[in-house]
Amino acid sequence: MSLRSLALLGVAVLALAGCGSPAQHADPLPSWNAGAARERLVAFVDSVTRAGSPDYVPPADRIAVFDNDGTLWVEQPMYAQLHFAVDRLKALAPEHPEWQDDAALKAAISGDFHALGASGHEGILKVIAASHAGMSTDEFDAIARAWIRDARHPKFDRPYTALVYQPMLELLAYLRSKGFKTWIVSGGGIDFMRPWTEAVYGIPPEQVLGSQVKTSYRSDGDRPQIQREPAVHFIDDQAGKPIGIQRHIGRRPILAVGNSDGDFEMLEWSSTCPGPRLAVLVHHTDAEREYAYDRESHVGRLARGLDEAAGRGWLVVDMAKDWATMFPAAR
Amino acid sequence: MSLRSLALLGVAVLALAGCGSPAQHADPLPSWNAGAARERLVAFVDSVTRAGSPDYVPPADRIAVFDNDGTLWVEQPMYAQLHFAVDRLKALAPEHPEWQDDAALKAAISGDFHALGASGHEGILKVIAASHAGMSTDEFDAIARAWIRDARHPKFDRPYTALVYQPMLELLAYLRSKGFKTWIVSGGGIDFMRPWTEAVYGIPPEQVLGSQVKTSYRSDGDRPQIQREPAVHFIDDQAGKPIGIQRHIGRRPILAVGNSDGDFEMLEWSSTCPGPRLAVLVHHTDAEREYAYDRESHVGRLARGLDEAAGRGWLVVDMAKDWATMFPAAR
Repeated sequence: MSLRSLALLGVAVLALAGCGSPAQHADPLPSWNAGAARERLVAFVDSVTRAGSPDYVPPADRIAVFDNDGTLWVEQPMYAQLHFAVDRLKALAPEHPEWQDDAALKAAISGDFHALGASGHEGILKVIAASHAGMSTDEFDAIARAWIRDARHPKFDRPYTALVYQPMLELLAYLRSKGFKTWIVSGGGIDFMRPWTEAVYGIPPEQVLGSQVKTSYRSDGDRPQIQREPAVHFIDDQAGKPIGIQRHIGRRPILAVGNSDGDFEMLEWSSTCPGPRLAVLVHHTDAEREYAYDRESHVGRLARGLDEAAGRGWLVVDMAKDWATMFPAAR
Repeated sequence: MSLRSLALLGVAVLALAGCGSPAQHADPLPSWNAGAARERLVAFVDSVTRAGSPDYVPPADRIAVFDNDGTLWVEQPMYAQLHFAVDRLKALAPEHPEWQDDAALKAAISGDFHALGASGHEGILKVIAASHAGMSTDEFDAIARAWIRDARHPKFDRPYTALVYQPMLELLAYLRSKGFKTWIVSGGGIDFMRPWTEAVYGIPPEQVLGSQVKTSYRSDGDRPQIQREPAVHFIDDQAGKPIGIQRHIGRRPILAVGNSDGDFEMLEWSSTCPGPRLAVLVHHTDAEREYAYDRESHVGRLARGLDEAAGRGWLVVDMAKDWATMFPAAR
């Protein structure tokens, strides 16, 4: 009997028993198919958490970092935050005729995502700066909350927060149950993610790292504010990821999970250190249930990671093969 | 019988009983004298943590931020980190004759702290950049660990880590026992503090914010490094403190503790928000057991805070009057 059959049988037995509360020894990763990926994840977690294991890692050092876009939730056909930014830009465009003189901003307002994609990460961040600035952090928080509540993904017609990967939700919860502290380290905007990461992923705001606009403190009057300025402070992508990890966490992760070459340095930084380490790349191979893309994609390009994963001992998760379920069931 | 007598009696009874394990209802703040400061701290913690309290705050939002220099440990006659920097500069000076052309660096190397103090926080950070850069984060970690282990305070002739305030150690532990997450938000260098804050304060590296040098990621070879560059990235002082809090924590603290005007904005940001809030200033009034200084001090100047504390409802702790013990007993 295969591991998968056992797991399915377990689920069936639980279902037959009408068990409402989680069983003590329930499979923590029911959406992961039996196979090398699942086995390696479980073996790694066991090796660093089991008392007496030669690879035992004390709880304080059990740092796991996850990219967000394309690793924890859908990033195609465009980043959710870009969708948010475009919605904002369109609404604000009548007050800003000068935006038509900027290639990236103009492309965003007109919905020309190919041209916008061609303007690169810098172009995208320019759009974000123009659409995300000129307000206080409290105001931005309210705007982001309202948008994420109402927006729907163009293909799946579900809220973005419903398009998180069920296997990753299980992995996050499994890691936390084993004493890991789970972090998001994303190229996305830190203040765009924080309003909902706790409810959706169980990750509190202080464990979210992301790209940041410049801010300033204003204390005129009796209600001080932190104002968001139209300039980029920090891009938490590529080499920015290990730098952000060092700044915010100050420890080297023992587990790093990403899906694109923007995560390469994060995985490299986390895995090239003495002691047990695991680096994971999620490979988008499932055009039917989600999207299939890698080397040629404008969003979430993955080439170097695929080329070097085997040589570096990184685990590549094949979404079509390794994941039994893609998204949480609709509620 | 006063509260203090009761507390002392409690200690005496425990001592007579030879009780090795902490009593369940032991006073969590034995080094705080009975009085308004202690009462207000305990009443605040009770009001935000007691089930059914109208001011109840869920654990996730129980964020407490503490300045370090002068709030958790001694900052006179000069910051420990400045002592560290001067020791480094002196050792490295023969290789850097150009340092003699810089007023702040020259003052530091020659031990002229008055001239160095006159160069201001910027001058001090210049010294820190020159003495703290040109190495990897791992190398710096090792250097800082070795120094903090061996250095001794010029007046007390004890390690700096023994010159932490016993009442503050108790307050940190008390808050954590009540579900608070405790953070350091210091003008001092983040990487200078992180090697020892967990052992000394129980505060892990990821809950330490401080000033930062620029860093770069270098991945040539199979051992990538984060290199410390000789330039300031962020000064976590004054208005930088709320900005740093927003970046690293992403929630507004409900309790903020500082001791100088460098903490003013942190206390303002934390206390001017709806809901229960407490801002605390430690006033250095004890020339006998520690130091007495405020408005005229080069280090830890406190003037605006004293002027505005009463009007803003901030608690001012009088170290001479409110603290029964200053430092942990020598071991």
